[in-house]
Amino acid sequence: MSSANETGFVLDPRLAADTIFIADWELSRVLLMDDARFPWLILVPRRVNAFELDDLSFDDQTRLLREVGRAMALLRSIATCDKFNIGALGNIVRQLHVHVIARREDDTAWPGTAWGSGAADRYDSAARDSLLARLRSGP
Amino acid sequence: MSSANETGFVLDPRLAADTIFIADWELSRVLLMDDARFPWLILVPRRVNAFELDDLSFDDQTRLLREVGRAMALLRSIATCDKFNIGALGNIVRQLHVHVIARREDDTAWPGTAWGSGAADRYDSAARDSLLARLRSGP
Repeated sequence: MSSANETGFVLDPRLAADTIFIADWELSRVLLMDDARFPWLILVPRRVNAFELDDLSFDDQTRLLREVGRAMALLRSIATCDKFNIGALGNIVRQLHVHVIARREDDTAWPGTAWGSGAADRYDSAARDSLLARLRSGP
Repeated sequence: MSSANETGFVLDPRLAADTIFIADWELSRVLLMDDARFPWLILVPRRVNAFELDDLSFDDQTRLLREVGRAMALLRSIATCDKFNIGALGNIVRQLHVHVIARREDDTAWPGTAWGSGAADRYDSAARDSLLARLRSGP
């Protein structure tokens, strides 16, 4: 879905390098973090000059909230989710983006954060393609 | 403001031990993290059995979103905020709570996360009381 508001939206190249495109939802570009250690989605509102949550209109913030819920449902459909970690940080990449990460009590970083937990373990191509198919057909 | 929905709400004792009470807003108990390294608020929706964001009704999620915005405005009124870090993690304390942290590019953990960044530097009583007075009279 396209609108005047998203004219000029360009995904930050650092986000693009670390992720795989899943879909464009109403507001957000939905990305899979290319790290097999954690089922990890990133939502990037397709708005220009959005860095902080409140740079979005409240209508867009509400859209983002609904999409965070959809991302949670999507992760539940493909993975064990003992706890969700949801965050908008942006200390390194300033373009507004929200992490939705399914954590397991036996994952490698538990109970620490996935952020700053060491090098990504990139998906091999078969696992990645299988996961992407499930994510693209999910809720 | 009190409602039937918050009957039985009890703040997790670990959150209570690490924070100082600021106020009860419409949905959330608002707490100051007792760590002078970071201007850091925690919002705890006064709902029982809420662990994940989507354990809240969507109306309550929207209230929480507004209160996150209010917390950002409040932090902007008292501190330098180069970047906000907003997160709902709960790997250790499961009771749903949202961190709203004002980060500075020269703070001790930058650009890493405030979570897991070492021991808190508790406020001395004069600084704490002065800050609480400003937070309680803020937006």
